[in-house]
Amino acid sequence: MSITLNVQGMSCGHCESAVKGALGELEGVNGVDVDLGSGKVEVQYEEGKVTEAQMKEAIEEQGYDVA
Amino acid sequence: MSITLNVQGMSCGHCESAVKGALGELEGVNGVDVDLGSGKVEVQYEEGKVTEAQMKEAIEEQGYDVA
Repeated sequence: MSITLNVQGMSCGHCESAVKGALGELEGVNGVDVDLGSGKVEVQYEEGKVTEAQMKEAIEEQGYDVA
Repeated sequence: MSITLNVQGMSCGHCESAVKGALGELEGVNGVDVDLGSGKVEVQYEEGKVTEAQMKEAIEEQGYDVA
């Protein structure tokens, strides 16, 4: 499964690392691709192991908004 | 003593932390103030213990340009 989240406020490679790291720590997340320019974050995950709400929370805890 | 360096490419708080951290590790640097908007980085330092060249190198190693 994969989902694409629209994340606002990521401005540099450090931001990308912060978001990738936070998502990567969630059980059930297998991969994360970030496009800084568009703010699109594509998450590969195992259905039933992690929810979209958990992903959003992980991103928001890093200080970014999810549209 | 203090010097103000013009740093390009700092876009967020992570960038600020990277620059502050790198300068703070230099012996002879006593304080660092970063203004993200203008890119101005003011460094308080002890003369004779650290050079402007060392400060610039520390910043550039983090991936930012010093004008």
